[in-house]
Amino acid sequence: MKKPISSLCLLSLLGAYNTVQAQDQPDKKTPESSELWSPEPHIITPGEKPGDMPSDATVLFDGKSLDQWVSIDDTPAKWPVKEGAVTVLPGGKDIRTKKEFGDFQLHIEWRSPATVDPKQTGQGRGNSGIFLQERFEVQVLDSYNNKTYANGQAGSIYKQHIPLVNASRKPGEWQAYDIFFTAPRFNKEGRVISPAYVTLIHNGVLTQNHVALWGPTEYIGLPVYKPYEKGPIRLQDHGNAVSFRNIWIRDL
Amino acid sequence: MKKPISSLCLLSLLGAYNTVQAQDQPDKKTPESSELWSPEPHIITPGEKPGDMPSDATVLFDGKSLDQWVSIDDTPAKWPVKEGAVTVLPGGKDIRTKKEFGDFQLHIEWRSPATVDPKQTGQGRGNSGIFLQERFEVQVLDSYNNKTYANGQAGSIYKQHIPLVNASRKPGEWQAYDIFFTAPRFNKEGRVISPAYVTLIHNGVLTQNHVALWGPTEYIGLPVYKPYEKGPIRLQDHGNAVSFRNIWIRDL
Amino acid sequence: MKKPISSLCLLSLLGAYNTVQAQDQPDKKTPESSELWSPEPHIITPGEKPGDMPSDATVLFDGKSLDQWVSIDDTPAKWPVKEGAVTVLPGGKDIRTKKEFGDFQLHIEWRSPATVDPKQTGQGRGNSGIFLQERFEVQVLDSYNNKTYANGQAGSIYKQHIPLVNASRKPGEWQAYDIFFTAPRFNKEGRVISPAYVTLIHNGVLTQNHVALWGPTEYIGLPVYKPYEKGPIRLQDHGNAVSFRNIWIRDL
Amino acid sequence: MKKPISSLCLLSLLGAYNTVQAQDQPDKKTPESSELWSPEPHIITPGEKPGDMPSDATVLFDGKSLDQWVSIDDTPAKWPVKEGAVTVLPGGKDIRTKKEFGDFQLHIEWRSPATVDPKQTGQGRGNSGIFLQERFEVQVLDSYNNKTYANGQAGSIYKQHIPLVNASRKPGEWQAYDIFFTAPRFNKEGRVISPAYVTLIHNGVLTQNHVALWGPTEYIGLPVYKPYEKGPIRLQDHGNAVSFRNIWIRDL
Repeated sequence: MKKPISSLCLLSLLGAYNTVQAQDQPDKKTPESSELWSPEPHIITPGEKPGDMPSDATVLFDGKSLDQWVSIDDTPAKWPVKEGAVTVLPGGKDIRTKKEFGDFQLHIEWRSPATVDPKQTGQGRGNSGIFLQERFEVQVLDSYNNKTYANGQAGSIYKQHIPLVNASRKPGEWQAYDIFFTAPRFNKEGRVISPAYVTLIHNGVLTQNHVALWGPTEYIGLPVYKPYEKGPIRLQDHGNAVSFRNIWIRDL
Repeated sequence: MKKPISSLCLLSLLGAYNTVQAQDQPDKKTPESSELWSPEPHIITPGEKPGDMPSDATVLFDGKSLDQWVSIDDTPAKWPVKEGAVTVLPGGKDIRTKKEFGDFQLHIEWRSPATVDPKQTGQGRGNSGIFLQERFEVQVLDSYNNKTYANGQAGSIYKQHIPLVNASRKPGEWQAYDIFFTAPRFNKEGRVISPAYVTLIHNGVLTQNHVALWGPTEYIGLPVYKPYEKGPIRLQDHGNAVSFRNIWIRDL
Repeated sequence: MKKPISSLCLLSLLGAYNTVQAQDQPDKKTPESSELWSPEPHIITPGEKPGDMPSDATVLFDGKSLDQWVSIDDTPAKWPVKEGAVTVLPGGKDIRTKKEFGDFQLHIEWRSPATVDPKQTGQGRGNSGIFLQERFEVQVLDSYNNKTYANGQAGSIYKQHIPLVNASRKPGEWQAYDIFFTAPRFNKEGRVISPAYVTLIHNGVLTQNHVALWGPTEYIGLPVYKPYEKGPIRLQDHGNAVSFRNIWIRDL
Repeated sequence: MKKPISSLCLLSLLGAYNTVQAQDQPDKKTPESSELWSPEPHIITPGEKPGDMPSDATVLFDGKSLDQWVSIDDTPAKWPVKEGAVTVLPGGKDIRTKKEFGDFQLHIEWRSPATVDPKQTGQGRGNSGIFLQERFEVQVLDSYNNKTYANGQAGSIYKQHIPLVNASRKPGEWQAYDIFFTAPRFNKEGRVISPAYVTLIHNGVLTQNHVALWGPTEYIGLPVYKPYEKGPIRLQDHGNAVSFRNIWIRDL
């Protein structure tokens, strides 16, 4: 139980407060004054190796099943799982997680097809996407020797933020995205009060540093925020056989 | 002299902390530890009435002359000054300040023409603009009963940020903008590291709250940052006889 | 009807783009693509004069009654109302609004006593405070020729952020604060995900530009966030007869 | 050379601008309008494995020599290098990089001594620190089953920001920090206009998400910004034989 502080005591405190000398008094400063003993951060176990899942993460794809996913037409997810990876089934439609998320840390690995059709260029090569909260697309593309618009290459927030550098690996090699996402906040009239923020690390290299998103990704026209609560992770079927593996997420 | 706090009082205080962890030592914490005696903020004299210039501001337009301005074709500014206001000379070209600015607070008052041509609608009515650092347009428009795109009305960051509310006055009435601008920062390769931020107050009402700008204003296509140092304030000749008065700026 | 742009003109425009990469297709870019027609901002009526309440604000104190307020001990507010102002009753305890708020714009005017007791210095002179959400103190103090710690003077976020300048008026004169507040956001474990932000305008001069608050104000020790939803505005009884008037607030 | 646009053309453009229909025209929106073809991000080669240095990084310590370092008393760095690691020489003083940095991404691995003296607790166990720009301390501490103040444990910004979680490994095991640092910006009077920001990943787990720093780290009293340009990375000799390896940095 919290004891009440007597009125007398409050007066003493105010007295002490009111008559402080008009000068700095470094001798009255103590190291204990800047210690904070609570809240105590939860103890978690980090992954054994880099990229491994920490103990407080949720597995989204462990290489074996699509249990955590569903097709965006609400039928079972049809993308094939093989050798620890799931691969886009062209024409098989986007898939999304069954769970929804707010603020999170997401780890995901992806690979564009090793065999490159020389007729496929630009947005036609190794194209997929990771839609955060089903709205904000982190672009997936084979951007290794493959020119396209800068805000549409790997490491970009599609049609919004150009990556700081192009840290792409060759087609056929596994690449990693680590994503820190802060969800937008809305007022009661549905206007955005605080935008979404994304930090993106591509193969260990920072390509987006806490950038403010303009709104949900649009292919045509400017993005504009509309209110919502939480949302799933969606992977895009853009017609290319891009593979994914080792997907996990932590609520922030 | 600082009055001592009675032991009884201290005990009460400690009681109030009784859920704190054992190793915390609140009795070793002092109020002096969280005092900062420097830097001492500079003393300035605020304006007498709201909207008046504080002592550390630079007058950009005092109602009498265009001394601080030049035409964007580097000839003398040709817009007419009359009755304490300067008015856009249609076809007379944009004007800009001779001085350049980084981070600043800007006060500016504007008035769209009292007589409204009913054939003029949307962007055709009372259109002008205030370009911060010659790049980022705070839209000026008669948005009183005049529908246009939301990211192009008064109180918007043109083609970027929709205002939170429409706080427009009638055509012919003076309106005020108070603008807090943080300039973008670039790395040595010219990429933006920290975007520009704008807070905009329209007639005393907050319409943009520290929004991150996407890049310099574009009429066609997406904005994209290019590196620069400082820039002037530019007022737009958009063909309408919009007036301005009481313009001052403070470096932040 | 939209006038056609002549082919000659388009050629000129394309010429202007002549350093753009080959695959860029500026001729396929349209001005309509960057128009956003919704959401349409709500129409409000700004106050007639600066400082006047806009139509969407809630009156917290109109100079006549303390209807909107209660004492922090949950008894009726006892501070005297006279000549359009309410004045701290020393020993009468803090008062707070009955309503609670999230993100908001707050206007408040205050006046420290005209008669200055020369024995009162530093924190002893004209001391009060405005606690946003009952937690974050915007300091009220007579800081006209009155030295104290910089993070405890007028225009400061108490024991956190030093004001950019000292824009104080003389004791006995009315001063104004305009405050834009973004509430902190917490995760389900109570940890802060997005801190509170404050922009503070003191007598028309920007003194805090979207500063991130460290946590709720503490007199002793460091601040630390604890989760909560909304909170009232609280005015502090610090033993000095500071007056307030013209208090209104708008939800953002 | 950029061709001039004829006046006639400008008039045509203005005509097109002024008479836009007061309604949305989605059929006039094109996908090309939201493509940005420049700037093209620089191409870099990411590290082969997670934690490996990308091609645009600067090696600060490769396990062989302290070439890039100097003691803070400007004598040669005396800490011993052995088996690919450098270890604090208790009493040997802090060391710092010869180069200075602004905004950066830093990778650093560290290990607290495997043998724990049970008499050493709290701040006495495996204590060191990484000072960004010689000013902002990312705490290094054995925080595995070792209680101390929350803003002083591993993963904290010392005496400022408590980590979101405790992702510590056991003493004797290598741990990794990945740090994204945005330097503060000052005005010409030396006041901070934009604070420093830190994102910290501890063993692959986000513990600080773009937190605004309060000022340079202080052991006693509150931090306060003072202006400077760039600064080195400094490693702390806190009397414990903490080891470091695989240190590299990239300018942002």
